[in-house]
Amino acid sequence: MIERRTTIPFSEARQIVTEHVEQLKPVSAGLFLARGRVLAESIYAPFPSPYFRRSGYDGFAICAEDDHDFPITLDVVAEIPCGATYNKRLNPGEAVRIMTGAKVPEGADKIIMLEQSQTTEKSNEIRLINTQPSSNITEIGTEFQKGDLLLEKGHQLNAGSLSLLASFGITEVKVWSKPKVAILSTGSELVAAGEKLPDGKIYNSNEPLLVSLAEEYGAEVVYHEALSDDYEVTLTRLREIAGKVDLILTTGGVSVGDFDFMAEIAKHEAQLLFNKIQMRPGSPTTAMIFEDTLLIALSGNPGACFTGFHLFAEPVIRKFSGEASSIVEVRGVMARDYLKNNGYDRFLRGKANFSEGKYQVEPIGSDMSSALGNLPFANCLIMIPRGKVGKAIGEEVRVWLLSSKL
Amino acid sequence: MIERRTTIPFSEARQIVTEHVEQLKPVSAGLFLARGRVLAESIYAPFPSPYFRRSGYDGFAICAEDDHDFPITLDVVAEIPCGATYNKRLNPGEAVRIMTGAKVPEGADKIIMLEQSQTTEKSNEIRLINTQPSSNITEIGTEFQKGDLLLEKGHQLNAGSLSLLASFGITEVKVWSKPKVAILSTGSELVAAGEKLPDGKIYNSNEPLLVSLAEEYGAEVVYHEALSDDYEVTLTRLREIAGKVDLILTTGGVSVGDFDFMAEIAKHEAQLLFNKIQMRPGSPTTAMIFEDTLLIALSGNPGACFTGFHLFAEPVIRKFSGEASSIVEVRGVMARDYLKNNGYDRFLRGKANFSEGKYQVEPIGSDMSSALGNLPFANCLIMIPRGKVGKAIGEEVRVWLLSSKL
Repeated sequence: MIERRTTIPFSEARQIVTEHVEQLKPVSAGLFLARGRVLAESIYAPFPSPYFRRSGYDGFAICAEDDHDFPITLDVVAEIPCGATYNKRLNPGEAVRIMTGAKVPEGADKIIMLEQSQTTEKSNEIRLINTQPSSNITEIGTEFQKGDLLLEKGHQLNAGSLSLLASFGITEVKVWSKPKVAILSTGSELVAAGEKLPDGKIYNSNEPLLVSLAEEYGAEVVYHEALSDDYEVTLTRLREIAGKVDLILTTGGVSVGDFDFMAEIAKHEAQLLFNKIQMRPGSPTTAMIFEDTLLIALSGNPGACFTGFHLFAEPVIRKFSGEASSIVEVRGVMARDYLKNNGYDRFLRGKANFSEGKYQVEPIGSDMSSALGNLPFANCLIMIPRGKVGKAIGEEVRVWLLSSKL
Repeated sequence: MIERRTTIPFSEARQIVTEHVEQLKPVSAGLFLARGRVLAESIYAPFPSPYFRRSGYDGFAICAEDDHDFPITLDVVAEIPCGATYNKRLNPGEAVRIMTGAKVPEGADKIIMLEQSQTTEKSNEIRLINTQPSSNITEIGTEFQKGDLLLEKGHQLNAGSLSLLASFGITEVKVWSKPKVAILSTGSELVAAGEKLPDGKIYNSNEPLLVSLAEEYGAEVVYHEALSDDYEVTLTRLREIAGKVDLILTTGGVSVGDFDFMAEIAKHEAQLLFNKIQMRPGSPTTAMIFEDTLLIALSGNPGACFTGFHLFAEPVIRKFSGEASSIVEVRGVMARDYLKNNGYDRFLRGKANFSEGKYQVEPIGSDMSSALGNLPFANCLIMIPRGKVGKAIGEEVRVWLLSSKL
């Protein structure tokens, strides 16, 4: 009556799902839409920066021929506000009033700061009282020569990158595509928050969890729906969606019960990758290729769903985008006891705190797979290996740091 | 001819701007819009969780009276899928087929797992071959009693919080308002990326920088515009915008040149807070109250603009939202020499690397205030105090870690 499943270690499950996806093709994106995305091309300076000789100060541009025996008095032949140009050559005996950032005229060799000048009785004349060794001119290409590397392929675009690209007039870049993800919560017991709650039913908490996590880790969620426990309905909807997305995440229906239709679909309608992992919570987590689309069927228990997302869906989403998993494994030290007998490797939602050169970690809240009170506070997953004794305070454990930015 | 300004230390400038703003009023927001926002109220469980006695397994619900002398054979009186209920009381001699997560009927005391059952020849009968000490029932309120604290005022909502709130049917929460910010770049030399670049003009890089940073640190950017160097145009536009936003950030026009209109507006049209800070880059950074709205006028030099945003605008944006600055000051150790003479405290864009229990920091790229090639890579600001010698490798420095998430 009870189906026997082949269990595999969680690390193998993780490897299987990531091996089944490939980095997506690059797409062009406008600057602001590209924020947070990863460059699929290296970007080189299309022109030198600055591309003209730039005045570093407000003051007067003079020729080298006049740059001695101060104070000197010169004719002011023009005023160059920022963004304007003086299109004649500056001659000895002449000065041009120039602003910070403005283009230094041809023939000019130095900017005398405004502070070193005095007006005379004549409005078209200036007395320059002193000089400085510096030319106060930023020469062409001082920061970047034409063709210099600005940003390397693989760089994640941030505010500073947008600013740098904009300074070269670049408005569009090639970035790795975000994977399109469908999130389907299965279970006739689910009611959307905001609706009336009939007795025996529960509010759907996995859908907002997965939508939020998937977006945060770089996916574009294109479908999120709840499906009732009906084999045909579920199958039909999956067929409509597969092929339109890069990844399908489902919750619920993976166990061995009479209404566990995702488990049935995995066996009869798809290429099953695995349906039992040697871990808790989430041992019946299932993966399959459903009509060429990877489908990860997570447990409907919120704790298991949270853990399963981070271990299996996150690395897949990141690989689609050309990135390694952002969830780093470190060694941690237990800050308190967890001394239960575990038939399988157990992942505890925990809090990691870096102090005295170590990650001190402790389980928080309930370890029940149905518990979700600790989801807002967990910043790591702590692995307690299978065995009778658990881990005592001070013992080393494997820890996955959740990189969630919020 | 040259105006003398009173200089203040950067820490005083930072204090002045933050003292001039108050936390905004809370607003109600739907769950998904509230993501990343900070709760302005504590949230308590509106009902216990679970709110019904929940079956932990697929199996058969039985009465305590039958819970001995296994194997036993019972009449199966109903099947309860998840989300359904059995509205009669279970009697001794009866069993109910029940699914994981379903409501345990009244009178039932234990769930015998499906694995411990055998069908008999009669379809309405089940043979239960074994028992376990656990009831396999999650009692009402096991995770939360009605009225228990779910999330505390001040909590920043993440994927887990949305999930927890949704599980209680909560769809709307009070969060601190995001400040509305206007970003105005001044300067007739500015051209938007994508436009043709006339000689002597430059692409506007500060606008994308500030829009991106302001949004990232929690502001809602409601205006971003470039203004030409025209006193009346600038003044008119500021008057139109002030009062509609919580903070105005401008770039450029703060120096002492003939076209530095923000400096003029600060003196003649507003309550000047300061217009000279003992720091580089960005010494002419100016702050004022313009028609009851705080206006921070940053330098137009990209390096100065970047530095000024993090030191002065970020703490203001965060205070509006009820949060402390996310930019933490730490002690760092110089990983290489910076041995220049500095007339003012100098903030270097740098890279901090935590290793061997210390923040190893090093300046990256150019320290010129006009340079922006290092903006995509800087994750800290390093302060080199005023003085003739700078800081040598191994020396301690004050460091501000930029919390930018991208």
